Amino acid sequence: MCEANAYLVEDGKEELLLEMVDKVVPQEDGLMLEDIFGRRKLIKAKIKELALVDHRIILEKE
Amino acid sequence: MCEANAYLVEDGKEELLLEMVDKVVPQEDGLMLEDIFGRRKLIKAKIKELALVDHRIILEKE
Repeated sequence: MCEANAYLVEDGKEELLLEMVDKVVPQEDGLMLEDIFGRRKLIKAKIKELALVDHRIILEKE
Repeated sequence: MCEANAYLVEDGKEELLLEMVDKVVPQEDGLMLEDIFGRRKLIKAKIKELALVDHRIILEKE
């Protein structure tokens, strides 16, 4: 499976937000993250970088 | 390997932009896509949706 883990970077520190993320959909007020089980999390952040081979989605506050 | 293919959606049609994308980094003027071989493409678009289990990165014009 090619899901990734989503991390929020703030002040140089990484916080794990959601594991096994399948879908990421930008919304007006942030990002909708959905994991492979269909669990969703809406977060006020934007994408800083995707590194798919490393299974990493790096987010930062808007 | 968990790379994905990047598609640009315009007028309801999908165009394959770059295969085997590893990294996606938003820039001031668009997105930098980098494939697993290190080949880069800068495109004036934004992320519409990621569907990682399906290996799909869907972009749309800004």
